[in-house]
Amino acid sequence: MNSTPTIAEWLVSYGNQAFEVVGVLAFALSGLIEAARKKLDLVGMAMVTALAAFGGGTLRDLLLNRRPFFWVENEFWLWAILGLCALALFFMRARHIELTERATQWPDALGLGIFAAGGTQIALDANMSPLIAVLMGVITAVFGGVLRDVVVNEIPRAFNDHQPYAVVAFAGGWVVVAANALNWSSFLAVGIGSLAIVSVRLAAMIFGWRLPTWRV
Amino acid sequence: MNSTPTIAEWLVSYGNQAFEVVGVLAFALSGLIEAARKKLDLVGMAMVTALAAFGGGTLRDLLLNRRPFFWVENEFWLWAILGLCALALFFMRARHIELTERATQWPDALGLGIFAAGGTQIALDANMSPLIAVLMGVITAVFGGVLRDVVVNEIPRAFNDHQPYAVVAFAGGWVVVAANALNWSSFLAVGIGSLAIVSVRLAAMIFGWRLPTWRV
Amino acid sequence: MNSTPTIAEWLVSYGNQAFEVVGVLAFALSGLIEAARKKLDLVGMAMVTALAAFGGGTLRDLLLNRRPFFWVENEFWLWAILGLCALALFFMRARHIELTERATQWPDALGLGIFAAGGTQIALDANMSPLIAVLMGVITAVFGGVLRDVVVNEIPRAFNDHQPYAVVAFAGGWVVVAANALNWSSFLAVGIGSLAIVSVRLAAMIFGWRLPTWRV
Repeated sequence: MNSTPTIAEWLVSYGNQAFEVVGVLAFALSGLIEAARKKLDLVGMAMVTALAAFGGGTLRDLLLNRRPFFWVENEFWLWAILGLCALALFFMRARHIELTERATQWPDALGLGIFAAGGTQIALDANMSPLIAVLMGVITAVFGGVLRDVVVNEIPRAFNDHQPYAVVAFAGGWVVVAANALNWSSFLAVGIGSLAIVSVRLAAMIFGWRLPTWRV
Repeated sequence: MNSTPTIAEWLVSYGNQAFEVVGVLAFALSGLIEAARKKLDLVGMAMVTALAAFGGGTLRDLLLNRRPFFWVENEFWLWAILGLCALALFFMRARHIELTERATQWPDALGLGIFAAGGTQIALDANMSPLIAVLMGVITAVFGGVLRDVVVNEIPRAFNDHQPYAVVAFAGGWVVVAANALNWSSFLAVGIGSLAIVSVRLAAMIFGWRLPTWRV
Repeated sequence: MNSTPTIAEWLVSYGNQAFEVVGVLAFALSGLIEAARKKLDLVGMAMVTALAAFGGGTLRDLLLNRRPFFWVENEFWLWAILGLCALALFFMRARHIELTERATQWPDALGLGIFAAGGTQIALDANMSPLIAVLMGVITAVFGGVLRDVVVNEIPRAFNDHQPYAVVAFAGGWVVVAANALNWSSFLAVGIGSLAIVSVRLAAMIFGWRLPTWRV
């Protein structure tokens, strides 16, 4: 059916795009900062930034056999990444920019929530079971960062920093599953799931929650 | 045709599942031990264990464009991995568990045979040529371990330990091809192929066979 | 329609295959040399050589959802890689082969041009937009090397050597796009695109052009 969208539909579509913008920018920033910390060149910066921003969603789409990819459909984002790297050229010359790991954690928490909740919803819409959907959400949110770290030759931070990161995304995915089971709209499900994940992640950062660790 | 299975069919299906159980557990164990050796956290353990157990088969299915994946169809396995990691939480606290590289080699040999022979059979069933099928078997058996090692920032053991590992899988794949050429059942082909690979691999371990190496 | 090819068609098909031969061999050589420098074993050599030669094109085909892969359709290449590694067994025993990084740059420049231009053309033929097509060309040309470097536990050379490599492929992709916009034949488009990329890359090597770098 091809009708003009109602105001509600328009708002939802607009809201979904706002989610997207924040999530992609947050992860792109984490990639850019990592690339700068490793003193990669222009190409490395563009690639690592793109991997961090699109890697998780692309892997999810490969696994779900979804096409076109997010960044093929919304080509704008590729120009944005290229523009970001052109901009970064100027910053390259600046001294004394402190690129601390902590600085990337704030936008990263936002990206985590949006990507995990959104990825879970997409997998549910593709008729995946709840567990698979939640794991696809985790993959969407975490594997951009994993690929970013693997490519710059580090053990993925998500795998060994003992912080609640992927587990928060995992738990929050079940919120999205529950909202779908209650027949809430996907917009609401993603919104509430994202909110839950971001809140818990921020709390974990602020209060310094840790996963159980190895006895030394 | 939808008829009740004969006892033979049931046995074969049961046998195939037994293969599967042993193969997946063997590789999952290798991932878990590697993760523990690297002192990864809970998430890293789950991810590396899952990569080791499902990575090779998933890559094969991506290349062959097969869906659903093994772990989507048999969701039980994902719960098993999650349970394994919950269990590992307790072991984390225990001192003095010796996790030697040698200890993982025994289950690993089993996984190698089952995954290589099974992967070859699956590729043959997808109408791949013999060489491609054998290589798909090698990919199934070896790339779980390769991904496991790449993610924990090591050069894949399969690529530089000069032991007959992937070459045994490669040779054994041709046994499966030959069995298919003789019109043996796929159960028999996989069984004999697995047996051949496991035997040769164990012999290689016991007698210390080596691949030709670089002159120092 | 199944008619006998005209001489022009035959020449074009022959020319395309010649491109292919040079490109694959160039990248395979880069993988083999890298594997030798890292003292990988026979299996590692075969895998890294194959990753370098087919990795970029395979990733492109996964992203474009194209099947069969290049190396499934042209199985000859797999035998060639296996043969190459058998040959390398003899060289393994030889001392004093100087495998300098510079030595690989010359064939690599050829591979870069052919794979980038060819990859762009393939993506255009799959109805991708110009930007996506150009990026698919870059992925085809660069990710074989990226996978090669990631697997041997190095930060990809293409990401941090500050040399014009991927950017040359990126720029040259637009030559292919322009040639297609002018309705030139795909053979001509790929030929001119390759020529442009190889020339600029060689010039960059000879004159030592550098990308803008970080201020120390």
